Amino acid sequence: MSITTARAVTASPWAASPAPTTPQAWVRRAEEVAAILEVDAVERDRALATPYDEVRLLKQAGLVTLLGPRAQGGGGQSWQTAYQVIRRVAEGDGSIGQLLGYHYLWSQLPAFYGNPGQTEQIAATATRERWFFGGAVNPRDADLVAVDTGDDLMFSGAKTFSTGSKVSDVTWLEAAIDGHEHHVFALAPSDHPGITFHDGWDALGQRLTESGSVTVQDVVLPWSAALGWLDKEFRPRVYNTLALPAIQLVFTSFYLGIATGGLRTALAYTRERTRPWPYGGDDRERGVDEPYVLDAYGDLQSKLWAAEALADRAAEAIEELHLDPDGLTPRARGEVAVLVAAAKQRAVDVGLEIGTRVYEVTGARATSSDVGLDRFWRNVRTHSLHDPIAYKRREVGLFALLDEVPEPTWYT
Amino acid sequence: MSITTARAVTASPWAASPAPTTPQAWVRRAEEVAAILEVDAVERDRALATPYDEVRLLKQAGLVTLLGPRAQGGGGQSWQTAYQVIRRVAEGDGSIGQLLGYHYLWSQLPAFYGNPGQTEQIAATATRERWFFGGAVNPRDADLVAVDTGDDLMFSGAKTFSTGSKVSDVTWLEAAIDGHEHHVFALAPSDHPGITFHDGWDALGQRLTESGSVTVQDVVLPWSAALGWLDKEFRPRVYNTLALPAIQLVFTSFYLGIATGGLRTALAYTRERTRPWPYGGDDRERGVDEPYVLDAYGDLQSKLWAAEALADRAAEAIEELHLDPDGLTPRARGEVAVLVAAAKQRAVDVGLEIGTRVYEVTGARATSSDVGLDRFWRNVRTHSLHDPIAYKRREVGLFALLDEVPEPTWYT
Amino acid sequence: MSITTARAVTASPWAASPAPTTPQAWVRRAEEVAAILEVDAVERDRALATPYDEVRLLKQAGLVTLLGPRAQGGGGQSWQTAYQVIRRVAEGDGSIGQLLGYHYLWSQLPAFYGNPGQTEQIAATATRERWFFGGAVNPRDADLVAVDTGDDLMFSGAKTFSTGSKVSDVTWLEAAIDGHEHHVFALAPSDHPGITFHDGWDALGQRLTESGSVTVQDVVLPWSAALGWLDKEFRPRVYNTLALPAIQLVFTSFYLGIATGGLRTALAYTRERTRPWPYGGDDRERGVDEPYVLDAYGDLQSKLWAAEALADRAAEAIEELHLDPDGLTPRARGEVAVLVAAAKQRAVDVGLEIGTRVYEVTGARATSSDVGLDRFWRNVRTHSLHDPIAYKRREVGLFALLDEVPEPTWYT
Amino acid sequence: MSITTARAVTASPWAASPAPTTPQAWVRRAEEVAAILEVDAVERDRALATPYDEVRLLKQAGLVTLLGPRAQGGGGQSWQTAYQVIRRVAEGDGSIGQLLGYHYLWSQLPAFYGNPGQTEQIAATATRERWFFGGAVNPRDADLVAVDTGDDLMFSGAKTFSTGSKVSDVTWLEAAIDGHEHHVFALAPSDHPGITFHDGWDALGQRLTESGSVTVQDVVLPWSAALGWLDKEFRPRVYNTLALPAIQLVFTSFYLGIATGGLRTALAYTRERTRPWPYGGDDRERGVDEPYVLDAYGDLQSKLWAAEALADRAAEAIEELHLDPDGLTPRARGEVAVLVAAAKQRAVDVGLEIGTRVYEVTGARATSSDVGLDRFWRNVRTHSLHDPIAYKRREVGLFALLDEVPEPTWYT
Repeated sequence: MSITTARAVTASPWAASPAPTTPQAWVRRAEEVAAILEVDAVERDRALATPYDEVRLLKQAGLVTLLGPRAQGGGGQSWQTAYQVIRRVAEGDGSIGQLLGYHYLWSQLPAFYGNPGQTEQIAATATRERWFFGGAVNPRDADLVAVDTGDDLMFSGAKTFSTGSKVSDVTWLEAAIDGHEHHVFALAPSDHPGITFHDGWDALGQRLTESGSVTVQDVVLPWSAALGWLDKEFRPRVYNTLALPAIQLVFTSFYLGIATGGLRTALAYTRERTRPWPYGGDDRERGVDEPYVLDAYGDLQSKLWAAEALADRAAEAIEELHLDPDGLTPRARGEVAVLVAAAKQRAVDVGLEIGTRVYEVTGARATSSDVGLDRFWRNVRTHSLHDPIAYKRREVGLFALLDEVPEPTWYT
Repeated sequence: MSITTARAVTASPWAASPAPTTPQAWVRRAEEVAAILEVDAVERDRALATPYDEVRLLKQAGLVTLLGPRAQGGGGQSWQTAYQVIRRVAEGDGSIGQLLGYHYLWSQLPAFYGNPGQTEQIAATATRERWFFGGAVNPRDADLVAVDTGDDLMFSGAKTFSTGSKVSDVTWLEAAIDGHEHHVFALAPSDHPGITFHDGWDALGQRLTESGSVTVQDVVLPWSAALGWLDKEFRPRVYNTLALPAIQLVFTSFYLGIATGGLRTALAYTRERTRPWPYGGDDRERGVDEPYVLDAYGDLQSKLWAAEALADRAAEAIEELHLDPDGLTPRARGEVAVLVAAAKQRAVDVGLEIGTRVYEVTGARATSSDVGLDRFWRNVRTHSLHDPIAYKRREVGLFALLDEVPEPTWYT
Repeated sequence: MSITTARAVTASPWAASPAPTTPQAWVRRAEEVAAILEVDAVERDRALATPYDEVRLLKQAGLVTLLGPRAQGGGGQSWQTAYQVIRRVAEGDGSIGQLLGYHYLWSQLPAFYGNPGQTEQIAATATRERWFFGGAVNPRDADLVAVDTGDDLMFSGAKTFSTGSKVSDVTWLEAAIDGHEHHVFALAPSDHPGITFHDGWDALGQRLTESGSVTVQDVVLPWSAALGWLDKEFRPRVYNTLALPAIQLVFTSFYLGIATGGLRTALAYTRERTRPWPYGGDDRERGVDEPYVLDAYGDLQSKLWAAEALADRAAEAIEELHLDPDGLTPRARGEVAVLVAAAKQRAVDVGLEIGTRVYEVTGARATSSDVGLDRFWRNVRTHSLHDPIAYKRREVGLFALLDEVPEPTWYT
Repeated sequence: MSITTARAVTASPWAASPAPTTPQAWVRRAEEVAAILEVDAVERDRALATPYDEVRLLKQAGLVTLLGPRAQGGGGQSWQTAYQVIRRVAEGDGSIGQLLGYHYLWSQLPAFYGNPGQTEQIAATATRERWFFGGAVNPRDADLVAVDTGDDLMFSGAKTFSTGSKVSDVTWLEAAIDGHEHHVFALAPSDHPGITFHDGWDALGQRLTESGSVTVQDVVLPWSAALGWLDKEFRPRVYNTLALPAIQLVFTSFYLGIATGGLRTALAYTRERTRPWPYGGDDRERGVDEPYVLDAYGDLQSKLWAAEALADRAAEAIEELHLDPDGLTPRARGEVAVLVAAAKQRAVDVGLEIGTRVYEVTGARATSSDVGLDRFWRNVRTHSLHDPIAYKRREVGLFALLDEVPEPTWYT
């Protein structure tokens, strides 16, 4: 497979800086990225512009290869650090946080599903070449089909969503394959002439995630590229099922980042611009002295901290499982899935509450479109519908009540 | 004063229908208007287009003159009917509901503040000419000033907000006047060359309310046009203070209309398009059978009905006061204000909750921009910040705890 | 049937007062009863004393015969008035409010189910004799059985709950009857030697409702006493199904009364005893000036008013149906049931919220057992579990979503 | 000072077990204690019986000396472990959890305030003698006064609350002292003839905490017993201010324990006794299959986990400060206080919500007094009023908005 990075790389803000080496330093790096992203987040969101520059920034910052092996120039960091990094980036721009989170998932797909040889080879090349990953993946449909042509697989069809593919270097094709129960995943260069990305992602939130549809026409990839397949049979590691809680915790991470961004943006607005109310209360000189303002911020901040603490605990738990992939049991995997389901609920709840209530503590003029304070509500509201949150409550309820852990599906 | 209606009137959908005569018939008429408005509400909202056509529709439907005297062709209806009509229109388009509500307030300003002669004369002319009213009013600033030139007043300055003026036939100018404590209100033709309406209202919600700024240059109006002034003195009726609870109940009415519109739109979407979730629950064939969907809709509908019932009760109470304006006491006025403050809280709470939670029962695809399901949240969120809802809780709290009714201010 | 009132009647507070004649006067009478009940409500609740005196008070006040025909000395009032009266009495003592509400239901059972002859005869006698009704009724079990002995029915068995029977003059026996699908209801004197009421109702709340179990041994009643049966066949009026929404609205009425009592009790406490907090805020002289206190009371009062307004609307709607029992359609009945289901939800929600949050605005010393502020939470919490509130949300959801009205069951 | 333990020590359940040595083992020990306490928690609570036996159990389990030096037979554990232990014990009995938590605070008072000599001496003796500590402390009043008699201090007066003193071996007397700004703390034997504990603590919840009043008559203690005083001057360590966040985190710990106990008790009840609802839904065989039941438990469990995770984080943060008492800065102390304030809010909110909502998922029969499911709501409700939670929101709000940390007071 020979894929080269097409995008020009302009001067990096970190050209003169040494690469971070500790988790703390990586998180700081992510904060620097967020600060850059935040500057024109409102305009970018409205323009619905394809985020080529923002992906380049992630590469320059080294975040794209955070999980890659150090030998090839990667950060060699753990998923725990990755969750923190996603959070920080999403604080500056929720869409870019999602793109980075999905990239981590796609880039680590071999570690979840691949044969050891595939895992190592893809990790090495991806890190060296600083690939940004996309995915034409949706296990709920079979609109993309792979045909066995002997040594190769030929992919044709379409996918409704293809998050990040348009700004990616490589894209996973996920397809139904005739005569097999399991779908096949294989990596293709995103600029392959048989792959066409369509615009048309125009949603309420997470607007820059390039989640439009894709059509695939006669893309031929070798059987050896089929992740986890050996001799035309799917032989998954137990480990594969860990991908699912990881996915949901990636979601949770950027929800928390968006919520934090929303709260921080509102706090700054209130400090700088919110006026006290002159009628019917105690006369106050500053908006920040209004009791109802302090009360609301205290409530929101406390709830956000609690959601973060639970997500951190889930990240610790999942990290332990990553450290011993071969020892993974369905029960251990299921318990983590339940913890992640709980963390997701708390993140969504507080994200939506912050998204709505910040207006009450900033005031009428904060509804001006150029303030753009609505993007936080829109971003959480949109992606939190990926799969029904009611089923996350149900999963946790089944565990609490009947000590049952969820069966691995694409959503638990 | 000689003001003529500038806008061309095209064929009315109700050209062949007799005018409604009962409150029920007027409400049905409003529902017909809402059905027309709803068709392209999403596109109109996005285009930020000035709603000339929509105001014409309100005129054709007879809603603009709902409160006008029958002798001049008005509907001769009560405020109670008007609140219902505002609700229905806002169900189809929140902005137009607000414009109509404000129009009712502006058109009835003489009844609240004027001398009997002014009241009758303006009511008659406005009804006959089917004036749509706007207002360059904001009692919190003194940026517009009236100068006493002997027989006349000359207005110059600016106002930050001028809701509806751009699509209006006549506009109230509210100005500080040198040497007097009270501001003066006087009616000017909206196409007066000295009045310039500016674009620039680009807010999160209620986008078509034309709430942009206005500048006024040397607009001369006679002293006799100064509402409630006699011999250059302001001699208000006690009744004037009733305007304020009426304003807040107008707000409440279009919040409820928007909430109803949001719920109805979501219900239709769920019925037609929401799919059941295939993982982890009982297998169901239809989205409408999902227990969490039924649960959420039941909760939202119940809350909405309760808020409506309280607003209806407030409307009854205020109607009683309207019927005996000279018997109005500060206490009676204050008790109604408290009831309205309570109704507003419930309307805002349920409006925001519906605006956010409808997504959980419609699903991920309902976030597509062409569905436009977000306008309900945006509309309630935006206008509900007009004055801090925390102070409405405080007002009701003071009444419950200390039996105090609020002092009349521009916001209670 | 010959039943006499066993209890001694002591001097009535209203001995010298004329009976009320208007709904307003009856509501005032109920308020006077509530004021008497409130004095020792805490002690009575704790003592778990059988409320003989309280039932006598209800008789003296005339409330027991509120719905009875005027010709026999009854109040001749409507159900709408009855709901208001239940609310007021429950404000003073939730248990007594429930007993009165159940009494109204039991006393009107013939109007719902009986043949016209039964209806009139029981109404006349019950009013003249001022019967207090109880009921050994629970359609979910068949532990009480009636045996057809030719002209008579012989009842034997038990019921788990028998609300109010112990303090009643007459009691409905509800029993399964061999060879018939429908259960039979017949009225027995409560002091019948074959009926034994057991103590043992010791619940969290509504402690004085005498809802203990009952055993029945060989109680013989004539077939003519079987409500709605003719020639040993059950021939119900359509009207019968109206009983069920009426039941749920009776529940809603005493929930609202309890909530009002809780709020009023807390308000008085705060006014008289709650101290301001001296640390970390603005220094205030009075507890009533604390912004968080005013905020919470404003929120609770607004929610309570909204729930009351919705219950009032449901009462109006059900009253319309009562006025034309023969015109009752399943759809009309179902729509009212949905409205009642919504009102119940709002009443329960606000009742529980008031029950819990009043402590935050009264303070630590209000937890002293002699204050007894917990009875409001306990009372709503206990009875609101009569049937799952989740199913009330479901009913309203089904109506909103699919325009379905609930099938008549014993709980809808 | 010579104080001996008066209570007889009966056979310990752990007589044959080695003392725990790891935090995990101590937590397990606490769980064993909780399991014993839970058996008759309902009866004990109702009987309002002085918990002599329960305190003895805590001693037998070694929990009383958990924080004591190993050299004297203590557990040598950290506060982090203590918080976990309090949580577990409160899960079995909220009152006993509070008593243990207060004991830890009282027993560590010398570490917060004492001179090094005092600290070590009291720690050694208390551990060796297995003292249980009480406190006649309330800094908001000056009803207890110490008089300087030269070498000694003579204490006389009263305190309204004296949590745990009645079941304690030693009690702190906190008194105002003439001519000094600061109050003085000194330790007295609880069976001192000059100290009289009064019954009369009869509150809604936390009923066994023996928080009744105390009178003190001429109790003479040497100046050397005055904590933190040298040469009749109060010379506090900076460290002293750390006591306050520690107190609030102790509260938070037993709130969380109570909440966990409530959830677990309800879950067991639902599993064993709750029936499905036969009307109007899908027919289900088991109560545990009701969607609304799973939904509610999932929601409550997720919220509880989030609150626990935040409390754990606060415990980590406070532990870091304990490790370097001399490096403590007002800012570091304040940041921890804010984090604790947030954790407390989340614990109280979820505790109250669990306390109320468990009934909806257990059903009507769970209101029977012998089930005693109400104690969890009562316990959280009562103690959470210790100081207004609104001020905790305010503290967090001030930090979020203005980066201010609270001034040390007795409540922050």
